Amino acid sequence: MGKVVCGISISADGYSAGLNQTEERPFGDDGGDGSGAQLHAWMFDTPEENRVELDQLTDAGAFILGRNMFGPVRGEWDRNWNGWWGENPPYHAPVYVLTHYAREPQPMAGGTTFHFVTDGIESALAQAREAAGDRDIAIMGGANTVNQYLAAGLIEELRLHISPFTMGAGTRLFEGVPPLHLEQVSSRGASLVTHVTYRVLP
Amino acid sequence: MGKVVCGISISADGYSAGLNQTEERPFGDDGGDGSGAQLHAWMFDTPEENRVELDQLTDAGAFILGRNMFGPVRGEWDRNWNGWWGENPPYHAPVYVLTHYAREPQPMAGGTTFHFVTDGIESALAQAREAAGDRDIAIMGGANTVNQYLAAGLIEELRLHISPFTMGAGTRLFEGVPPLHLEQVSSRGASLVTHVTYRVLP
Repeated sequence: MGKVVCGISISADGYSAGLNQTEERPFGDDGGDGSGAQLHAWMFDTPEENRVELDQLTDAGAFILGRNMFGPVRGEWDRNWNGWWGENPPYHAPVYVLTHYAREPQPMAGGTTFHFVTDGIESALAQAREAAGDRDIAIMGGANTVNQYLAAGLIEELRLHISPFTMGAGTRLFEGVPPLHLEQVSSRGASLVTHVTYRVLP
Repeated sequence: MGKVVCGISISADGYSAGLNQTEERPFGDDGGDGSGAQLHAWMFDTPEENRVELDQLTDAGAFILGRNMFGPVRGEWDRNWNGWWGENPPYHAPVYVLTHYAREPQPMAGGTTFHFVTDGIESALAQAREAAGDRDIAIMGGANTVNQYLAAGLIEELRLHISPFTMGAGTRLFEGVPPLHLEQVSSRGASLVTHVTYRVLP
């Protein structure tokens, strides 16, 4: 059976997005133009030295996203929105989107299908586990979603990608999560990032 | 002229101490017995593999401490307290303690003298700089003191020692500090810690 893993890019002060997110500025007040450029510089500016970690991000048999990570539509699905990633999203597997508003599954090119889960994080995980078979299940974010899974004790491995800047405010990883015992599995620095992988101990 | 540096041990969620600190439990609700054992396991359990970082901690010509890091006495100095470190503290240099209550300098064995500074962080830094000569000035903590210096733009190099656990609450590094641009100078993992050094950009 696969593991439940979470990979997330955070600032040195633990934020995965700033305040005041909008469709045009999905990462809000992120210290830049709201595109998350500083947070993800390690992916886009120095991909070769981070190849292992980049490949890991999408190496799962099923994915779980919070609704805010899926897109800017709030409330009813009254507008056509199929994610930030174009026709062929990088998941190539079932993706479970947490929402309070029901919607039919949305198949995309390349094997990705977005499923909309209205009955909570445990249901989403059960569906993802069923779909993933022997492969891992990746909790993709944002931090609010990750925090819910951490608080419920449902994440086994946490892969932090820590970028060299601070946001000062926003959505913070670990906010409101009870204390965790972690085991540092690996840790390495690259030019624009520190990668730390923790095993979450029971 | 020396640099203004800060080395601080934090949990993976950025805390340098928990809630409810007391004399008997100086790190408060730190996930253990209040002694900071998890936070400092890298120092005490695996010193040999962290020798460089340990030596760096006390490699300065003058030190600055917040009053809470110096000790549990609050208000007037109505009781004899000369720090947590015994007769021969590990500083071997002048140490400037931030306080609102005046007190005569306290010489200790081994070259450490505690000076008590009542006129603010900039005054403490000016005095430390004068004393340090060409050597670095180390802002030792706790996080509240570090945050004041960070917010004032007075720290040039930040050395984080990140331990594998979360506290969930307490005194958090970067709390209330406006966004910072950082340059990752170095980053390496050891068994029980990730060491990341940032240069704070203007």
